[in-house]
Amino acid sequence: MDKRIDFQTDPSKYRHWRVAYDGDIATLFMDVDETGGLFEGYELKLNSYDLGVDIELADVVQRMRFEHPEVKAVVLRSGKPNVFCAGANIRMLGGAAHTHKVNFCKFTNETRNTFEAAGDESGQHYLCAVKGACAGGGYELALACDHIMLADDSTSNVALPEVPLLAVLPGTGGLTRVTDKRKVRRDLADVFCSLEEGVKGKRAVDWRLVDEAVPNSKFDDVVGERAAEFAAKSKRLPARNGIALTPLERQFSADGNSITYSTVEVDIDRGRALATMSITAPDDSAPTDTEALHGAGAETWMLRCARELDDAILHLRLNELEIGTIVFKATGDPQAVIGHERLLLDTRDSDWLAHEILLYWKRILKRIDLTSRSLVALVEPGSCFAGPLAEILFAVDRSYMADGAFEGDNRPEATITLTAGSFGPYPMSNDLTRLETRFMGTPDQVEAARAAIGTALPADAASDLGLVTYAYDDIDWDDEIRVFLEERASFSPDAMTGLEANLRFPGPETMETRIFGRLTAWQNWIFQRPNAVGETGALQRYGTGIRGQFDKRRV
Amino acid sequence: MDKRIDFQTDPSKYRHWRVAYDGDIATLFMDVDETGGLFEGYELKLNSYDLGVDIELADVVQRMRFEHPEVKAVVLRSGKPNVFCAGANIRMLGGAAHTHKVNFCKFTNETRNTFEAAGDESGQHYLCAVKGACAGGGYELALACDHIMLADDSTSNVALPEVPLLAVLPGTGGLTRVTDKRKVRRDLADVFCSLEEGVKGKRAVDWRLVDEAVPNSKFDDVVGERAAEFAAKSKRLPARNGIALTPLERQFSADGNSITYSTVEVDIDRGRALATMSITAPDDSAPTDTEALHGAGAETWMLRCARELDDAILHLRLNELEIGTIVFKATGDPQAVIGHERLLLDTRDSDWLAHEILLYWKRILKRIDLTSRSLVALVEPGSCFAGPLAEILFAVDRSYMADGAFEGDNRPEATITLTAGSFGPYPMSNDLTRLETRFMGTPDQVEAARAAIGTALPADAASDLGLVTYAYDDIDWDDEIRVFLEERASFSPDAMTGLEANLRFPGPETMETRIFGRLTAWQNWIFQRPNAVGETGALQRYGTGIRGQFDKRRV
Repeated sequence: MDKRIDFQTDPSKYRHWRVAYDGDIATLFMDVDETGGLFEGYELKLNSYDLGVDIELADVVQRMRFEHPEVKAVVLRSGKPNVFCAGANIRMLGGAAHTHKVNFCKFTNETRNTFEAAGDESGQHYLCAVKGACAGGGYELALACDHIMLADDSTSNVALPEVPLLAVLPGTGGLTRVTDKRKVRRDLADVFCSLEEGVKGKRAVDWRLVDEAVPNSKFDDVVGERAAEFAAKSKRLPARNGIALTPLERQFSADGNSITYSTVEVDIDRGRALATMSITAPDDSAPTDTEALHGAGAETWMLRCARELDDAILHLRLNELEIGTIVFKATGDPQAVIGHERLLLDTRDSDWLAHEILLYWKRILKRIDLTSRSLVALVEPGSCFAGPLAEILFAVDRSYMADGAFEGDNRPEATITLTAGSFGPYPMSNDLTRLETRFMGTPDQVEAARAAIGTALPADAASDLGLVTYAYDDIDWDDEIRVFLEERASFSPDAMTGLEANLRFPGPETMETRIFGRLTAWQNWIFQRPNAVGETGALQRYGTGIRGQFDKRRV
Repeated sequence: MDKRIDFQTDPSKYRHWRVAYDGDIATLFMDVDETGGLFEGYELKLNSYDLGVDIELADVVQRMRFEHPEVKAVVLRSGKPNVFCAGANIRMLGGAAHTHKVNFCKFTNETRNTFEAAGDESGQHYLCAVKGACAGGGYELALACDHIMLADDSTSNVALPEVPLLAVLPGTGGLTRVTDKRKVRRDLADVFCSLEEGVKGKRAVDWRLVDEAVPNSKFDDVVGERAAEFAAKSKRLPARNGIALTPLERQFSADGNSITYSTVEVDIDRGRALATMSITAPDDSAPTDTEALHGAGAETWMLRCARELDDAILHLRLNELEIGTIVFKATGDPQAVIGHERLLLDTRDSDWLAHEILLYWKRILKRIDLTSRSLVALVEPGSCFAGPLAEILFAVDRSYMADGAFEGDNRPEATITLTAGSFGPYPMSNDLTRLETRFMGTPDQVEAARAAIGTALPADAASDLGLVTYAYDDIDWDDEIRVFLEERASFSPDAMTGLEANLRFPGPETMETRIFGRLTAWQNWIFQRPNAVGETGALQRYGTGIRGQFDKRRV
């Protein structure tokens, strides 16, 4: 799997999905091209999916929010006659490296969360209309929707057959959504997860697995009614015209060691196993009203930068497995960053585009939180960790700030500037702001930070407020950072992954943190176990007609 | 590691701990016998511990509650001059099978929770007085105490060096307690967990790692003062005389396939990979007042049964790894069970022993929740799932209830009887009752169940109330249960562990569920990774002078 996985696509390139728009209702058809797998060696039969299918889905969901803001309800259906979706492709999973399996699950989880959030945050509600078999990852797609309708016939069912068939877990949120979202009684959930053949009709309703079972004769009518109901109660902000998500400006160097976007630059140092991600402040003046914002569309800095950051992070996650540390830098005028964020903060309650761009920053910052690499920010002279970029300081594992002027460096002294952005619109998966999470033991410090909104804080003030880990003057700066990066590269990558997964999310849990924390960790453990992935394991043997042979010892 | 691990001990056998009692303050000295390891092949140097050391500690904590009810504060100290505790023994960990490592961590976690709970629930507060190096599992012992005092000198420190030294996590609650209990700022926690040498003195206080740093000259005085303060504010119920925890009545059959206690019988069917645990109702009348309760002491059924159940569960966990399913049965008069529970429920707010026995049931029921085996209850004719035993029905993964009379069987028809016990005193790790957890999606059913307190519910009523998974008459009973047990035995043990860990704990999270869910799952994953346990992994190479060599790919 050495080819570069590209997360950029657009409807003209889709092979697996199509969308029909009808006023405020869209219908999204899953119609996977069997021959369209991302890699060789498997066919995507029965609407099964791989990462390529999910990249298109993520693109659909994203474009729906920006290009079709008039949509208030999305009906997810199968484009195939007798099957809804058979879930993640088993041969792909069986052949994939542990790293790919885990990263694949993480991305699909993020995509499921995205359309679940579209209903909650943006009034763009996903409904699932299930006809035919809906198994494993297929049912996990349904679970992420706000409403599940199941055709009440002999062939339509929902199932989580992973445990009996494959000896792995329904790892794309399935177990967590069954217990926490749909609140299925735990012993019935146990039965359900043991049934290869799944559950149909009324029983699926009684067990809370679906919201309604609908006779085939009325299926399309009821689906239409429900979509209209969800659209009618949607709290979506008024919107007429979308904006086009034009192709990203992106250039890979020939050796793949640098990527240049319009606002982001990635430099890879393979010897030190690190990538530097530099973000450049806007060089244009901020839009002064929402008309200007809509006019700029995808070109407006806040949206352009989010899209580029998102692409860069995903590229590092999936294509650069040996890069253990990501160093964030930010260059330019802090006031320019703040200026571009300000209009969005001021108009997010009334303007759908302002609202959506801030929600996108929320998602990209969560994507950073969930990136299994050591994350560090360097606040250097001439940097612009302000507004949304200041949030990066509270997402990383550690931050280093330059204290005072550096000899021979005529850039402005390093400062940090907080905005209202750090106190609300970009919460973490645990539903707290990053500063609330950071100062869980000392909540007064959240208030002290709030009082500093708008002030350009030099290193001593930022340190006193607890906003950075270390501040060093130019005598110590280079050495301290070099030693830290060397130390980090010397640690076990697995231990770092486990450490960061625990330290980054203290305090309360949400369905989302449980999916990424508990469920994912168990699935990763099982993805290593010989009973699943060994020569006689169930995942390897799937399709051979021979069942897995298990070491019976319980752990 | 084929010898049978025995969880029964008493102070006359301790090799690693000693206790000095002085009125309402006890001092617990950790003084590990280097040569007293549970297995061959390692020495317990520097107060490092293995499961045997922890079995004694669990016994100390338990006896403190029952035999020394006058104690209100326990000071944990080292009995060695220059070291507090070096944590879990690395050579033991390096040589242990995955199953043993995981079960060892689970038991030590349960023990830490036990003394943390002793402060919260029983006013028996643990304080930690750290002199010398306190590293890894040693600091995790300290973290479970209500107050940590650190000698302010050049050799005393606290450290979590697992990640840099061993490429594993501080897996006995360390990471979770650092973030959630002590609320250490996350970037400082990241630094702390990277420092082999740990943190000393004032810095340890500033980072919230300890509560106070005390000069050596005043150390003993301050420790005494703090213990007196905690004792003074303890909410412990008045108590003069403890009761003796006399040795359990326990008989192993020669082949090890059955264990007979006074109220519990365990039968092991190796061919079917299952153990049947049968609990017998009391055959004596319940104590009518607390004087009678104290007079009966360890002989009273509620305490005897809890101790026997606890021992049996731990035996199966550690010594019978291939037993994938535990079947619970209960035989005898339901009214007798209810009678014995009633006095405790009625007097738990005023009588320390009644309070402690119910708390012990809370712990043993949680121990069942956390047992990584498939759990099933069979409610047969003549059974007594009532009061505390009814709680077992809501701890298991599935329950089967006999519906009506069985041909040729003259035992009474199966019934279930709920008491107030199911609505408060035995909460799960998530702080909800098992019925609240079971009916998270249908809270009205909790109230319906409450209205049925005291009624002997036959199968149809129990089914209607959602208290059992299935009810079968005698025509179907044997087949249904046989098929289920066969099916369960055919599944991957690892997938079952992951499934049950997710389905058993829906809803809210506590520090405890996070330790057993998230932290443990990540640690288990890392315990499988070549970077830790492979030939060139850090855990295997520890002590050789060669550092671990790592696969640098991030997962």
